[in-house]
Formats: sequence, structure tokens, C-alpha cells
Amino acid sequence: MSIENAIERLEAMLGPRLSTAAAIREHHGRNETYYPVTPPDAVAFPETTEEVAAIVRLCAEERCPIVPWGVGTSLEGHALAFEGGLSLDMSRMDRILEVHEADMDAVVQPGVTRKRLNEELRATGLFFPVDPGADATLGGMAATRASGTNAVRYGTMRENVLALEAVLADGRVIRAGTRARKSSSGYDLKNLIVGSEGTLAVITELTVRLHGQPEAVSAATCAFETVGGAVNACIETIQSGIPVARIEFLDAASIAAFNDYAGFDLPVRPHLFLEFHGSEAGVAEQAARFGEIADEHGAQGFRWTSDAQERNRLWSARHNAYFAFKAQRPGARALTTDVCVPISRLAEAIEAAAADIAQSRLSGSILGHVGDGNFHVAYLLDPDSPEDLEEARRLTHRMNLNALALGGTVTGEHGVGRGKIPYMAAEHGEAWQVMAQIKRTLDPLNILNPGKVVQIN
Amino acid sequence: MSIENAIERLEAMLGPRLSTAAAIREHHGRNETYYPVTPPDAVAFPETTEEVAAIVRLCAEERCPIVPWGVGTSLEGHALAFEGGLSLDMSRMDRILEVHEADMDAVVQPGVTRKRLNEELRATGLFFPVDPGADATLGGMAATRASGTNAVRYGTMRENVLALEAVLADGRVIRAGTRARKSSSGYDLKNLIVGSEGTLAVITELTVRLHGQPEAVSAATCAFETVGGAVNACIETIQSGIPVARIEFLDAASIAAFNDYAGFDLPVRPHLFLEFHGSEAGVAEQAARFGEIADEHGAQGFRWTSDAQERNRLWSARHNAYFAFKAQRPGARALTTDVCVPISRLAEAIEAAAADIAQSRLSGSILGHVGDGNFHVAYLLDPDSPEDLEEARRLTHRMNLNALALGGTVTGEHGVGRGKIPYMAAEHGEAWQVMAQIKRTLDPLNILNPGKVVQIN
Ligand SMILES: Cc1cc2nc3c(=O)[nH]c(=O)nc-3n(C[C@H](O)[C@H](O)[C@H](O)COP(=O)(O)OP(=O)(O)OC[C@H]3O[C@@H](n4cnc5c(N)ncnc54)[C@H](O)[C@@H]3O)c2cc1C
Ligand SMILES: Cc1cc2nc3c(=O)[nH]c(=O)nc-3n(C[C@H](O)[C@H](O)[C@H](O)COP(=O)(O)OP(=O)(O)OC[C@H]3O[C@@H](n4cnc5c(N)ncnc54)[C@H](O)[C@@H]3O)c2cc1C
Repeated sequence: MSIENAIERLEAMLGPRLSTAAAIREHHGRNETYYPVTPPDAVAFPETTEEVAAIVRLCAEERCPIVPWGVGTSLEGHALAFEGGLSLDMSRMDRILEVHEADMDAVVQPGVTRKRLNEELRATGLFFPVDPGADATLGGMAATRASGTNAVRYGTMRENVLALEAVLADGRVIRAGTRARKSSSGYDLKNLIVGSEGTLAVITELTVRLHGQPEAVSAATCAFETVGGAVNACIETIQSGIPVARIEFLDAASIAAFNDYAGFDLPVRPHLFLEFHGSEAGVAEQAARFGEIADEHGAQGFRWTSDAQERNRLWSARHNAYFAFKAQRPGARALTTDVCVPISRLAEAIEAAAADIAQSRLSGSILGHVGDGNFHVAYLLDPDSPEDLEEARRLTHRMNLNALALGGTVTGEHGVGRGKIPYMAAEHGEAWQVMAQIKRTLDPLNILNPGKVVQIN
Repeated sequence: MSIENAIERLEAMLGPRLSTAAAIREHHGRNETYYPVTPPDAVAFPETTEEVAAIVRLCAEERCPIVPWGVGTSLEGHALAFEGGLSLDMSRMDRILEVHEADMDAVVQPGVTRKRLNEELRATGLFFPVDPGADATLGGMAATRASGTNAVRYGTMRENVLALEAVLADGRVIRAGTRARKSSSGYDLKNLIVGSEGTLAVITELTVRLHGQPEAVSAATCAFETVGGAVNACIETIQSGIPVARIEFLDAASIAAFNDYAGFDLPVRPHLFLEFHGSEAGVAEQAARFGEIADEHGAQGFRWTSDAQERNRLWSARHNAYFAFKAQRPGARALTTDVCVPISRLAEAIEAAAADIAQSRLSGSILGHVGDGNFHVAYLLDPDSPEDLEEARRLTHRMNLNALALGGTVTGEHGVGRGKIPYMAAEHGEAWQVMAQIKRTLDPLNILNPGKVVQIN
């Protein structure tokens, strides 16, 4: 009963689809975070649900940890095998199984990425809205309850996963949810697994909700005099019920990086980036109403576009904002935060973060999906400086505590992984122990992604 | 260790707020279903969370079943103490604790009813959308994952409960969720408790999402030549992305009852009732688009109104449709079904139900929240005829199996209670056992609403 045994037996089962090659292991130990490269002992590439179930059963017998792997873009060490064991790379389960145009849903394997799904959907007039900055897998996105720029209008993975198939820690295969839009049929296991970060089950299939391409779309960038002006314009837009499809905040530092990296020439000031979806008339009306609000909050001028190519250029640059900021200092690492607060407290939360950045010797930028009250600070760190990491951690800690004090959460969309564990007791109190009880029940041997989300002893 | 002991000790704890009076027990054994009156051994009326926790701890010591009670309008025997014990009547915990207008949420105790919440909100320009036909409590609605006519646009209790406080079976008090609009912070305990029908926890506080009163509202009734015409017009409306706020189907039998009961004079044909929310221009545009679709499906004429009083009269009559149908035969009982299917299969499902009614000697009517694929058949039964009940059960059974065959669920909104237990294995397979595992973990003594949702032995 050991990890070594497990690997030997997995090799016999999977042949070349079980790898212990250094390069492959290292790839599955890399991450866009402050954690050092942490390679697993081996990497498996299953192709079917049955194979996943067999791997899980074998690993249970051998007490070998299993860490599911999408494309490894999670930001709190979620997909790293800190306790060794197997990285379960889902990338070969990447088929789009069914697209039900009439029902506006699709059945996909977990290794499909969000961009590929949308490419395949293009001809149907439908799209899948959830769009983290990275081109993540649907399985990874479901596992982290991901969201993105569209969530303010279209919801997160919670709302956009209708059903799933998953392998439990003892190898049982279950289905949770149906293609019907509503159900009151028992406990909501679908939403228990969405957001469980590979600690309760390996997701092997997803039924996701699709949405109709809007008849008309227009996008805008709008500069503001101050951070407060931009944030308050956002708050008022949400409160007045304008159904914006996207409303993103970027501070001046983000805009500077964005200009350099993507060749834009926006005024280096706090901005809102917006998108409106609807009928021609509806979009014009939304934009006009937003314009009035923005003017009252010191808007410095809009740029509008309804040209699809320009819009795509804007949003793909927005999705790369993290890399743009990192590119400001070649060789730097970034550490990114992820709080979410009730919208009425958003200005306070962002202004506190801005004051912290101003007083710190680190350079930091603020941006976020502010329509939901969710924002990030990215700090640039010298990878060889423990002092930089220490300082970034100190500021992140302040920001997380502030979010909790304002009635919010320490993670709006990135998830807990290992990095947010120290805040779980403060955020959830006794409920965190209930999460651990559920983990112990469904994974008594603690083999599925141990050390993440909950603490088991 | 007995129910008797529990009652004695509860009397000492609660004084007059613990009742064993026959009338009160009987009231808490009554139900709008096919179950006979089933009084609990006693009824407790707690006033605080601490009191609920103390009651639960005491009942755990005495192994006394606890069945939470809202107003008892659930339709599958959910709130009945089939195994004896205590009915925990939440009606005294009926305060609206906070209304956060800027964040569009409210914090309420579970005994608040949906109508009272909306009365209190009127001045704010906000409203709470979930509207089961009955004036249910928010606690009961959360516990059954209820929905109603507005769910097609505004979601069910799943989407409209942001956070909750609950007492677990061992008396621990937990909070799940926050007032922030998004979070990826750990397992979704909020949604595990929503829909758990009092079997995992007693909900003692809810934070619910509010929505802005739309600028413009218009409602319509639209008659069709055939059932298929009405249903297909609904399907196409949903597929074309018109953001209807309500779209309800009523068959000719429902309309006849509706006319008699509420003094309307609608043509006795299948109907859609609709409501559009938006700006003045948006509402007109939606209505025009719907009108085109309806015409293609044999619409027989519309009646429009944007007058608030007429609208309220229409919807309050719609909410009473069940009572209207029952009133068609004084003294009759009704048995009501509740399936939900993918929208593309809705016409099939409804036509199969209509054929079953046509071939049966029972009178039945069909109506439902068809925008979500959810509909009900109500059968009228002679309360003294076991044959009537048998026949209604036979037809319900066919309908439930058909819903599963079409990829749907046996309960779109009413929940499982005791009545839908026989379908749980067929709908969920192994996942139903996982639900039971969670129940055993959180309620090892099986004292919270035993015999509902899951089966424990
Ligand atoms: C530049 C950049 C921008 C980002 N922007 C956003 C954003 O806007 N919004 C957002 O939400 N996130 C964002 N992220 C974070 C990241 O993209 C998301 O967390 C994403 O959901 C991770 O998907 P992945 O496929 O990379 O999963 P991985 O990182 O490989 O895995 C994430 C977690 O899910 C588990 N997992 C993966 N697949 C499965 C499966 N099939 N079954 C069970 N568990 C599984 C893993 O074990 C791990 O715990 C960003 C990241 C980067 C680098
Ligand atoms: C005429 C009519 C029309 C209806 N229309 C609809 C409809 O359109 N949509 C719909 O969804 N339903 C509908 N229903 C069903 C019913 O109204 C809902 O199920 C409602 O949610 C029940 O609320 P209640 O307060 O009556 O709860 P109860 O019937 O008292 O209890 C329901 C369940 O919740 C539990 N419970 C109650 N309070 C709590 C608490 N605080 N904590 C934990 N558990 C609790 C109970 O133990 C029980 O299991 C209708 C019913 C009738 C009679």
C-alpha cells in the first residue's frame, strides 16, 4: 500500500498514458502562483469515465493521493500535489458530446476548454458565457466555481452547470442534476460538487447551459477622474437595474499595462469597460442610461464600438490584463487577490486596497468584475525576494480581513485551494467543520486532492 | 429517552409555547394532499435561534422526531409527522430584520410569508419574486426549493437565497453564504440546505435577493386553438430569447374553473398568460415579438393590460387556480403532479398528460410554469373513494415515468416529501445513496423530518 505500488499498477493499466517523465511531472507542478514548482509522482491521462473510476479505485487501495488537473491555471495552488501522488490530467476527455440547440444546453467532457466550446458553438447562434481570463477547462472551471466578465449578467459556473457526472472517492459513478431547468428533487449534489475543487469527486461530464447570441452588442470604455468615480458609477448602474452584460473596473496602473501590452492608447486613468447585450433599441437605451450615470460621476469620455472585431480585441486584451501587468517588469511573478463584497461596500473596499498599494513599496494594480462586487489586486514580486512575498502576503491579509469585515468573501471566483485555507474558519465559522464532515463522509481515506478546501486530521 | 419525555421537558422549557391541544395538533396534521390528517404529538412555537437549538438538542437526547412547519402548504406530505414527535412551527419567527436597498437584499426570519415581505417592500421599489400559489413562508419555500410564475425570469429559491442561518441536528448553529453576490469559498452548504425539506437543518434566518420593480409591466392572456399550439408558442418564445417575466399555460378545463371561480370570461380554450417586464419600449418590443410567434401557432386573440389592478386580479386568480379547480366539485380533494422536462420535450409531455386525462374517468386539468418546462396536472377525487385515489396515482405514475424518460425530473418545484420517495432511485440512481450518506452524517440519529427525501435504515 504505497504511492510507488500505485504507480506500478497504474503503468500496467494505462501503459504510456501513465507518465513519470520529469518534464511531464514538472509541467503538472507548475502554476501561476507564489508556490514553487511541485511535481506530482506521476501523471495519468484517462480517456473514459470507466478508466477514471478504475484509477480512483486503485489509488484508494494504495492510499495514493489523486489531484485532478484541467490546465493548471488556478491561482491558489489548487492543482498541486503537495502531498505527492497522482496528477489526473483530464485533457484527453475533451469531446463535445451533444449540443441541444432547442434546449440551449451542451453535454461536454471536462477537458473541453471554454474557447473551444465557443468556437464549436459559433454556427448555432448560441454561446457559453463563463470566461475566466485563462482558457481554462470546463472541468476545472466547474471545480473552482469559476466566473468572469459575463457573470454579472449570465451567472457563474453554479448557474451554468445544469448537471454533471462524477466519480466519487470509492469509484462509484454518479449523476447529479438533469437537463430540466428546475428541480426540487432532493439534495443539490450538483452544486455540492461544483466548487469542491476535486476534493469530493472527479467530474467526468458536464451539461452546461448555453445562451442566445444577443441580436445587438455594443462595448464601451469609459475613463474617470478618480477610482471612486468609476466605482460609484458601477454601483449606481447595478442599483438602477441596467442589465449590463459586462462591467469591469481597471485602475490607472492596469490601463498603463494594457496600453503597453496590447497596443491601446487609453487615457491612463481609472476606467470602466462595459458591454451591453439586447435588441438594437435595447442596447442603445442601456448605453444612454449608463452614460447619464457616468457623467454624474466624473466620466472623462467614452469610446464606443459595435464592431465585432474591435470588441473582441478589447475583451481579449482584458482577459490578458494579468499577463500585461506582469510584463511591466520582465521576470516578475504576480500574486493576485480575489475578494467579493456587497455592492454597497465596494467603493470602501477598493479605496482601502488603493490606499494600501499607494503606501506599499510593491507595485500593484486593481481590476475586477465590479458589477458583482468582485475585484483583484495583482502585486508584482521579484521571485527571488522573500521580502516581496512577505509584503504581498501582508497586504493580501489586510484585504481579506477587510472583505470579511464588509460582509464579503475572501474568494469571489478563484477558490480556496491551499492559499485561502487560513481564512476559512474566519469566513465560515462552524460551517467549515461541516464541510470537513462532508469530506470525511465522501472521501474517508482523504485521497481526493488532500489538503485543499478543508482540513482533515 | 422517549417522545413523552421530550414533550414533558419541552413544556418545562417553553411553557404555553408547547402545545398538545387537539385542535393545534390537528392543524399541524392537515395538508392539501391525499394524506389523511396526521397530527404530531406536540407543537412547539420557538421565538429565537437559541430556542430552536435548545429544542433540537433536547429532542436529540430524547430521540424525538422534529418536523419543521411553515404554513403546511407543501403537497407531498413534507410537513407531516408520520413517525410522531414534534411539529416545530416557525410562525413566531416572522420578523423582517434588515432591508438593504442599495444591495437589493433582505434578511428575514423563516416565518415571514412571501406576501408580507412584498407588502413591506412596496415603498422601496424592490420586490421578492418567488411566488408559489400559496402564501407560503420563506423558510418553507427555501426548504422545498420552491418557485412559481416568475422563475422563468427571476429564478427559484436556489438563486434567490443568498445566505442562511440554520440549526443542525446536534444543535450547532451555522451560517452558509454571504451577502456578496458571488463566492468560490468552499462547499456550497447554502444550496445543500435549500431544498433539504427540514431533513438536514432547521432554517432560522434567510438572506434573500430582491429585484427592482420594473419600469413598465404589461400582462396578456392569449387563447389558442389547441394545447399543442399554446405549448409550441411557449417553446418558441423561450428559444428565441424573449425575456418573458411570466409565461403560464392553462388548459381549457383550468380556464373554465378560472372563469367560474374568479369571475373572468375568457374563451374556454387552452391559454398562455404572460407578463413582460422592462422599459416602456422594451415591453412593447417583447410583446410584439411574442405576438408574431403566437399568431404562427394559432392564437385566437389576445387581451392586454398594463393596468396594475387588472394585472393583480389576473395573477391572484392564477395563484388560486388550484382552489378554483377544486371548487368545480364541492367536497372534492385534489391530487396534483409536478414534472419538469427539457423545453424541447414539453409538448410531448403535456400532450401525453392530456391524452391520459381524456382517457380517464377522473377530471383533470393541466397548468404550469411552462417557460421552465414545468407543469402540473390536478385530478379531482372523491375523498371517500379509494378507486379515485388509485386511478389518480396510476396516472401520476405514468406521468412521472414519462418525465424521467424525457430527461426530466419528477418534481420541478414541490419537492419530494414522502410522496416522491418511490421515484428517487429511478431519478438519481446511486446519487440517492449519496444523499442518504449526507443525511446520516449530519443527522446520525435521524431526528430531523425522518422518512422524507431519503431513506435511512
Ligand atoms: C490569467 C488568469 C486569469 C484568470 N481569470 C479568472 C477569472 O476571471 N475568473 C475565474 O474564476 N478564475 C480566473 N482564473 C483562475 C483559473 O483560470 C480558474 O480557476 C479556472 O477555473 C481553472 O481551470 P483549470 O482548467 O486551469 O483548472 P486547474 O487549475 O487545472 O484545476 C483547478 C481545480 O479544479 C480541480 N479540477 C480540475 N479538473 C477537474 C475535474 N474534471 N474534476 C474535478 N476537479 C477538477 C483541480 O484538482 C483543482 O483543484 C484566472 C487565471 C489566470 C492564470
Ligand atoms: C394552492 C397551492 C399552490 C402551490 N403552488 C406552488 C407553486 O407554484 N410553486 C411551488 O414551488 N410550490 C407550490 N405549492 C406548494 C407549497 O406552497 C410550497 O412547497 C411551499 O414552499 C411550502 O411552504 P410552507 O411555508 O407552506 O412550508 P410547509 O408546507 O410548512 O413545509 C414544507 C417543508 O419545509 C420544511 N420547513 C418549513 N419551514 C422550515 C424551516 N424554517 N427550516 C427547515 N425546514 C422547514 C418542512 O419540514 C417541510 O418539509 C403550492 C401549494 C398550494 C396549496
